[in-house]
Amino acid sequence: MIHFENDYNRGVHKDLLQALVDTNDEGLAGYGFDQYSERAKDKIRVACQAPDAEVFFLTGGTQTNQIVIDSLLQSYEGVIAADTGHISVHEAGAIEFAGHKVLTLPHEYGKISARQVETYLENFYKDANHAHMVYPGMVYLSFPTEYGTLYTKHELTEIAGVCRRYEIPLFIDGARLGYGLASPMNDVTLADLAHVADVFYIGGTKMGALCGEAVVFSKDSSPKRFPTIVKQHGALLAKGRLLGVQFDRFFTDDLYLKIGQTVMEKTERLKEILTEKGYTFFLESPTNQQFVILENAHYKELSKEVAMGFWETYDENHVVVRLATSWSTTEQDLEELQRLL
Amino acid sequence: MIHFENDYNRGVHKDLLQALVDTNDEGLAGYGFDQYSERAKDKIRVACQAPDAEVFFLTGGTQTNQIVIDSLLQSYEGVIAADTGHISVHEAGAIEFAGHKVLTLPHEYGKISARQVETYLENFYKDANHAHMVYPGMVYLSFPTEYGTLYTKHELTEIAGVCRRYEIPLFIDGARLGYGLASPMNDVTLADLAHVADVFYIGGTKMGALCGEAVVFSKDSSPKRFPTIVKQHGALLAKGRLLGVQFDRFFTDDLYLKIGQTVMEKTERLKEILTEKGYTFFLESPTNQQFVILENAHYKELSKEVAMGFWETYDENHVVVRLATSWSTTEQDLEELQRLL
Amino acid sequence: MIHFENDYNRGVHKDLLQALVDTNDEGLAGYGFDQYSERAKDKIRVACQAPDAEVFFLTGGTQTNQIVIDSLLQSYEGVIAADTGHISVHEAGAIEFAGHKVLTLPHEYGKISARQVETYLENFYKDANHAHMVYPGMVYLSFPTEYGTLYTKHELTEIAGVCRRYEIPLFIDGARLGYGLASPMNDVTLADLAHVADVFYIGGTKMGALCGEAVVFSKDSSPKRFPTIVKQHGALLAKGRLLGVQFDRFFTDDLYLKIGQTVMEKTERLKEILTEKGYTFFLESPTNQQFVILENAHYKELSKEVAMGFWETYDENHVVVRLATSWSTTEQDLEELQRLL
Amino acid sequence: MIHFENDYNRGVHKDLLQALVDTNDEGLAGYGFDQYSERAKDKIRVACQAPDAEVFFLTGGTQTNQIVIDSLLQSYEGVIAADTGHISVHEAGAIEFAGHKVLTLPHEYGKISARQVETYLENFYKDANHAHMVYPGMVYLSFPTEYGTLYTKHELTEIAGVCRRYEIPLFIDGARLGYGLASPMNDVTLADLAHVADVFYIGGTKMGALCGEAVVFSKDSSPKRFPTIVKQHGALLAKGRLLGVQFDRFFTDDLYLKIGQTVMEKTERLKEILTEKGYTFFLESPTNQQFVILENAHYKELSKEVAMGFWETYDENHVVVRLATSWSTTEQDLEELQRLL
Repeated sequence: MIHFENDYNRGVHKDLLQALVDTNDEGLAGYGFDQYSERAKDKIRVACQAPDAEVFFLTGGTQTNQIVIDSLLQSYEGVIAADTGHISVHEAGAIEFAGHKVLTLPHEYGKISARQVETYLENFYKDANHAHMVYPGMVYLSFPTEYGTLYTKHELTEIAGVCRRYEIPLFIDGARLGYGLASPMNDVTLADLAHVADVFYIGGTKMGALCGEAVVFSKDSSPKRFPTIVKQHGALLAKGRLLGVQFDRFFTDDLYLKIGQTVMEKTERLKEILTEKGYTFFLESPTNQQFVILENAHYKELSKEVAMGFWETYDENHVVVRLATSWSTTEQDLEELQRLL
Repeated sequence: MIHFENDYNRGVHKDLLQALVDTNDEGLAGYGFDQYSERAKDKIRVACQAPDAEVFFLTGGTQTNQIVIDSLLQSYEGVIAADTGHISVHEAGAIEFAGHKVLTLPHEYGKISARQVETYLENFYKDANHAHMVYPGMVYLSFPTEYGTLYTKHELTEIAGVCRRYEIPLFIDGARLGYGLASPMNDVTLADLAHVADVFYIGGTKMGALCGEAVVFSKDSSPKRFPTIVKQHGALLAKGRLLGVQFDRFFTDDLYLKIGQTVMEKTERLKEILTEKGYTFFLESPTNQQFVILENAHYKELSKEVAMGFWETYDENHVVVRLATSWSTTEQDLEELQRLL
Repeated sequence: MIHFENDYNRGVHKDLLQALVDTNDEGLAGYGFDQYSERAKDKIRVACQAPDAEVFFLTGGTQTNQIVIDSLLQSYEGVIAADTGHISVHEAGAIEFAGHKVLTLPHEYGKISARQVETYLENFYKDANHAHMVYPGMVYLSFPTEYGTLYTKHELTEIAGVCRRYEIPLFIDGARLGYGLASPMNDVTLADLAHVADVFYIGGTKMGALCGEAVVFSKDSSPKRFPTIVKQHGALLAKGRLLGVQFDRFFTDDLYLKIGQTVMEKTERLKEILTEKGYTFFLESPTNQQFVILENAHYKELSKEVAMGFWETYDENHVVVRLATSWSTTEQDLEELQRLL
Repeated sequence: MIHFENDYNRGVHKDLLQALVDTNDEGLAGYGFDQYSERAKDKIRVACQAPDAEVFFLTGGTQTNQIVIDSLLQSYEGVIAADTGHISVHEAGAIEFAGHKVLTLPHEYGKISARQVETYLENFYKDANHAHMVYPGMVYLSFPTEYGTLYTKHELTEIAGVCRRYEIPLFIDGARLGYGLASPMNDVTLADLAHVADVFYIGGTKMGALCGEAVVFSKDSSPKRFPTIVKQHGALLAKGRLLGVQFDRFFTDDLYLKIGQTVMEKTERLKEILTEKGYTFFLESPTNQQFVILENAHYKELSKEVAMGFWETYDENHVVVRLATSWSTTEQDLEELQRLL
């Protein structure tokens, strides 16, 4: 069986594993107050060109979205997101559990536009009944989106502009950020993200960490008592080192970015193979997730040897599947896939 | 100034006021354990032909929706509703405050169909990722809807059938129930509602009460410890008599239904006036709320003498306004309106 | 049967009822934006000598406590209260429902001291692990307390001083405020309360209203979007006039204070009767709730003709009962009680 | 510097690390549906002699307490715990964040008794006002307690008996379970815990895992949709293997129990050293946490070379410190400590 179903089916990137082994016997402070966590934060600030940023490490994506959103919103506020956004659909109501509504806008390939956001905000405040409604208190984007698509720097800057005018923060979910940054279609850097977003996170789990996401409050504006909020949400690790050591390694010698680049090369190879073999793409994705349309019978047959992610039913006779490359995809995986398709 | 902006701009219906006056000096048990509350519950059971129903009185509509939904849903469940449903838009996130997502379906004149609900439920359980999503745990309808429209008995029965198959309760918001029941277009009775719905509420505030809604768990299946849940939500009145006495009167000599009938006669008169005067209806509403399209200038001018409810912007030059008759609308109000239009 | 079980067994004070009757046919704005609510707020500001205060009307005590506490606390904060405080024991977890812990201090006759509060705060911040604990974000007192006792002006000023030093608000629950203000033992005025407390509420329900409590944010520091927060908690009345009209009357010709004075005279009479008859007081209460110790058999017998509130088991053979006078207690009630004891 | 400040200052036990390394390149299912997680669950069922138990893996202790308690309680219920319980004090309000009150009983060396629990429950249901109070819906114990003390099998059986009579679950927090099981003073086995408790967790983090706790619903009565609840609380790891692989190793060749035994031998040695050197114990602890009273000056001096945990201020001149042995404590650590004391 070869694995293309997702980007988290292997354990941990070998360099991160080595860092965990190397530091294993050191006696370190708990709860993220160890020197590796501190060093990782410093390196992230440098990589983001954001010397005043405050950085925190959390365990997983849904947890991060829940805590960031809950800590920044007032109780009477909700978060604007694409209707396909991860927080809208695939977090089992984690945002609502914390008391907040997700205010959805129709997506285009996973994206929403500055114009949509602005119209929503304009209409909200024009509505004579808006005091009876949920105040829009934040904009949530994902980069890359759930469809693998990317916002351009221009698009992000426009959305950020709307947020500034309405004085609400812009939050960018970077669960697969490294793949987005390394995409040949991308024109956004970490520094750009720190510039446009009030807060974003640098995804670790899907980039090769055992677990871990780095939240960056880029404007020195992290919520008061953030560690206590994290604890209250059940998310404070006793051995915070687990996250700090991995991110310290990610941001040493540009490993995080290099992993992305290597994977994007493999993605290009995957796209070539799929194109050569005559597969129909469901959409144009510039990142590590590729979506193709398969006949039901072919899907069933192929699934015996290739693990793929079911995405959605296309029509009675076809399904859309996701093929994801990742930090753990090998040349052999690709060759084997080519042979099997 | 004449009042057509809504159905809650007056105090209390004279017969209810008299009942409050008549019972004022009696020493009664608190928290809804008085004999008037008990008697009102009995009368409602009779009116609904639901001898096993459990009835509770709450103060207002949003409160009722929040408590009923929160008490019946499991923590991981959300409520299916029209995207125009009151809980979706105009309750300031009261449902999310209690931890639950509102799962919206596109409305048609405020209504959703059994087919839509079934498709949603089917797709949910077919989705391989549904364990990562909010489980649909209830269906919420409003009768009449926010657009004044009504479900037919057939439509309700079909929706109830889907709910039964998926073993989720059907909840009907009857904030303006009396106007719906009395509509000439209506074929649904209180007994029908008790038959199709697991729980519904009989709106008092908009039918002439100072405040108060009667929740009917029609299948003898009220949530355990419901009074404690009510208290926990801050909704238990010390002087529960205020609600019991009013509903006791509402359900004496069919006052509740009669109020509806009288108002619907006035609504027919209102529709005639509007038609005679050549106004364009925004939609066909069979209940006490009528929606017409006005030129901006005319709207502004008319507003000096007629209180109307702004509904939405129609286009650059027009607005949609709501004209509502109610238990407090008089013949003079209608004559005056006719003169002014 | 004569009624001494509580102070909410009758309907509404006759003057408030008259005000409701008098205004019943007026068409008024909803949701508390009517002129009676505005006028009541002005009168309350005058009575409190707090021209910048912001005043809001809510329906009941638990609701008020929940909303005030939830709207002022940060998510990671809890509220300090006596272990006998209403919010600690008798609100069915309404504070926790909104996500906040009640941090209890041992009471003395229902009261806590500035010294206790200060020690708690000092110890909290000295504790090296306090980031793992709930931050104390507010102090809650009740005046009168659940035992009918009162804080002196000096005691309140001291507690307020501690709150100021730690920059946390002081909230005073005045469910029975009018009885406290009128007590012969009291040296606190409404103006004093507005001076020492950041927020307090003037109880209506137990002073003769059908329902209603007036929240006073005395320092012009009400939480942003407070009406939306109220709506979100399910507490915004469509006919806000119900509360406004009653409080407008309460604060016309000092009715609120006069009711308190009349009741306190009756309380003095009640205490005399109990003393004459040789009853043992459970504690010295300077307000309308009196607590006496009865033999079980006597309690049972007496209950046939006198409604009393069971307070707690005293020992195997005795119980503590509460006898409350109120705005509805008559001379005849007292004479009848004297006869029966 | 030698480390006795806590039991989580090192990374991961070497055998668990080896297991992570050995399985690292395998492509596994996500979200805990991998074969290692399955195998670990089977082994835990065997170790607990509870073939019907349902086992889930979570990341940390506070998270586990929050999710177990929230998933088992009804919305109107709270959890009974010692006032020193971890959930009462050191979880930053995680239980209240999920809407539930912690109902505290006074502890004796961290423990509460069956008698206390029974009295609380009896009094609750006898209280005529209990419908206005938080229903006690669960009992929470920690084993060992926060003071290192242990319940005997007899004590647990008695508490479980009270829980059965009142039909509420018994939940045991086993953050340091392995140290408790291996204590020379202990008479409780894993099978006993599965027998008395409805749910308990087997702590991993403090026993040598990078992170991870194993929740055991011992009576085949896990809450419906538990994985969705976990997701909703932000606690579902994409790479659930991280937890499964470690617990699979813990429960292979009795490693979990052996680690406990080795540590308890070291604890005996630690106690000998402390006794020899004339230190005063703050309390008699039968597990890996030892508490001694130090003069302030001595504490300050010693802290330069020995990391200790500050516990509390004893008096003006003394502090209580915690010295914890753990799976990572070496012979050299103990020798060095002996030299330094």
